[in-house]
Amino acid sequence: MKNLLVAQSGGPTAAINATLAGIIEAAVWSDKVDRIFGADYGIQGVLEEKFIDLTKIGSNEKILDQLSTTPSAALGSCRYKLKDPKDDPSEFQKIIDIFHRFSIAYFVYIGGNDSMDTVWKLSAYMKAHGVNDITVVGAPKTIDNDLYGIDHCPGFGSAAKYIATSCAELEREIQVYDTPYVIIVEMMGRNAGWLTAAAALAEGRNGGVPYLIYLEERPFSIDRMIGDIREKLETNQGIIVAVSEGIHDENGTFISEFGTQHQYLDAFGHSITSGAGKVLEEAVKERIGCKVRSIELNLLQRCAGHLLSATDIEESRKLGSNAVKIALRGGAGRMSSLKREPGEEYSVIYTETPITEVANREKKVPQKWINDAGNGVTKEMIDYLLPLIQGEERCRYEDGVPKYVILKNYAKTGKMS
Amino acid sequence: MKNLLVAQSGGPTAAINATLAGIIEAAVWSDKVDRIFGADYGIQGVLEEKFIDLTKIGSNEKILDQLSTTPSAALGSCRYKLKDPKDDPSEFQKIIDIFHRFSIAYFVYIGGNDSMDTVWKLSAYMKAHGVNDITVVGAPKTIDNDLYGIDHCPGFGSAAKYIATSCAELEREIQVYDTPYVIIVEMMGRNAGWLTAAAALAEGRNGGVPYLIYLEERPFSIDRMIGDIREKLETNQGIIVAVSEGIHDENGTFISEFGTQHQYLDAFGHSITSGAGKVLEEAVKERIGCKVRSIELNLLQRCAGHLLSATDIEESRKLGSNAVKIALRGGAGRMSSLKREPGEEYSVIYTETPITEVANREKKVPQKWINDAGNGVTKEMIDYLLPLIQGEERCRYEDGVPKYVILKNYAKTGKMS
Repeated sequence: MKNLLVAQSGGPTAAINATLAGIIEAAVWSDKVDRIFGADYGIQGVLEEKFIDLTKIGSNEKILDQLSTTPSAALGSCRYKLKDPKDDPSEFQKIIDIFHRFSIAYFVYIGGNDSMDTVWKLSAYMKAHGVNDITVVGAPKTIDNDLYGIDHCPGFGSAAKYIATSCAELEREIQVYDTPYVIIVEMMGRNAGWLTAAAALAEGRNGGVPYLIYLEERPFSIDRMIGDIREKLETNQGIIVAVSEGIHDENGTFISEFGTQHQYLDAFGHSITSGAGKVLEEAVKERIGCKVRSIELNLLQRCAGHLLSATDIEESRKLGSNAVKIALRGGAGRMSSLKREPGEEYSVIYTETPITEVANREKKVPQKWINDAGNGVTKEMIDYLLPLIQGEERCRYEDGVPKYVILKNYAKTGKMS
Repeated sequence: MKNLLVAQSGGPTAAINATLAGIIEAAVWSDKVDRIFGADYGIQGVLEEKFIDLTKIGSNEKILDQLSTTPSAALGSCRYKLKDPKDDPSEFQKIIDIFHRFSIAYFVYIGGNDSMDTVWKLSAYMKAHGVNDITVVGAPKTIDNDLYGIDHCPGFGSAAKYIATSCAELEREIQVYDTPYVIIVEMMGRNAGWLTAAAALAEGRNGGVPYLIYLEERPFSIDRMIGDIREKLETNQGIIVAVSEGIHDENGTFISEFGTQHQYLDAFGHSITSGAGKVLEEAVKERIGCKVRSIELNLLQRCAGHLLSATDIEESRKLGSNAVKIALRGGAGRMSSLKREPGEEYSVIYTETPITEVANREKKVPQKWINDAGNGVTKEMIDYLLPLIQGEERCRYEDGVPKYVILKNYAKTGKMS
């Protein structure tokens, strides 16, 4: 008996369950897999032996489709990082024991950089200790689009579509009055500006509101931004300013820290930043004096199941199925990946990449994709981004409100929602 | 020659252009109307004689459909309030002169309480001065749902759908981790809690996250909220707290004003005015110490053309057509309105209401629709709200981004976008 275990990790995305659906689908169709388990709350659930049997779901295409458009890890997630086995191998040994006890021959972990670190360490430990009957592989996910070894990240396209759509709608707000108006939009992305760059996909499409786009890959200066806004307002009635939450000055001080002394650290020691937009709103009010409003897109940009990129959902699901294929052929320590094919028309091929290329690294926006003035992106960036937001995948509605798949209800009651 | 003039006023909604489309449609089909003019930026555009000829659009059903799903006043809006004619009748006289010069026999003003004040004053002035060849009527719009003389306001249903959908998605965020988690969502509506009440439409639909809903119709107490949250967290892993931007304590002090005493000092040493949600976030962090995040839905809740209530768009459009009918039969000083029919199945009839019942008044949430504890709404409220968000009206997409009708381009170039 050979079973497959899947778990989800890291922050929510709108496409992470499409990858889960792809994994369940591929596993159920394979004669190498007997049962499919899902772990409750990522690797934590593995350590606590909290498993849900997903085998039956696999043959229900309708549920898999609905799961694909359900945002935010259906199995639950965690930010738990395994201890370094050099310091403490007990967790690693415990996981291997549990896998053996549950006849788990394949483990697919869906997540971002940190989760790929877990895949890497587990694979390396197993190899070093001669554990040959378990294959651990990774499936990517992150709205941040900052993984190496893949053209773009599943979950990013839907977040980018949410951002571009929101900006397109805020343009309508700007055009409604006949007075100078600055709207500042703050996007997520701690260390990479990909999400913020997606604002550029709306520019020029609905009436010619100009954009200023500041990514965290360039040092930010409030003085320069004020100058840029003044210049744009000379010939335009209104303007959209898009900023990354992580913009910082040339000394590395986060602009958000100008607004508060507080700084929070998450489980991995990253500082949690938010509120750059609010600081800039005050600066515009004080120094330009025109109408200004800041909008923090916040959590909604990563869990908007009602506004999904069809391209993203399709690719995310196939990346899940591809991860199972990699696991079944024994590709331990590898991550399911995709490459963009050259040519005019957008297409991708599904492939794999060694986890060592992915784990604990962050792919930033290339400097050459930012304009010389540091307040916009180049055509190369637009060409890269545009295919990723194509198509509108619809979620299910019930009584006018999105109705999602609640996997945990299924485990308890046999019903999906 | 008898022409019809339409103008839009007040804050944006996602349905205000559906009403405009309904007006154009009805006017073009009537043999009593020769040309249809739209005023640039509301009554200001009237005073400046800035008119766009909309007659040709009227026979283009496709453009009217696209206009119906374009958010935020396509003609432009203003917040200009006419001076009291007792103090200064010159503006009124000027408007009448302009109307005569442009052969405008019918004027439909789309707006909220303030705009209905304009309709009222204009109608009264014309009547008092024997101007019998011009009929001024109102067409309602406001996301706030605070107009008297109408069962519910056009624009509100789409905003309510956006709010319920956003809450449904934030529930997925809450369920993703296995730790206590409070998400605070702040809705618009300074003086009435209708929008905040719409959060209740999501409760219980996607996995049983409980809600605490605080409307500005009851005095707010941070202590009581902390107590309510503590109680809910005893038996639930996470919770959504929905608050109106205008919540205030029993002395009438806005909760948002509590924030200026906190640590929000910007780079220039000025206090940053934050919303009520941010103040409550700090309070939960300090006094409960669990994971907490506040989300201000901000401008997006009133301009989300990608997430429209089909019921709202249909009703908004018919209210526009109905306004033209009222104008054509000489119903000066009246507002196009709708009544809910009694019975199990939701249906409305289109009617009219004297502007005096509407202007300068705000319809608040009835106390009996708020629960005794003041932290939720009753079944009557749900029954009232639910029909208003039914159906998903889709906007047009181009290259993955909403593509709206830009009326002003049309005036300049003859092209719609």
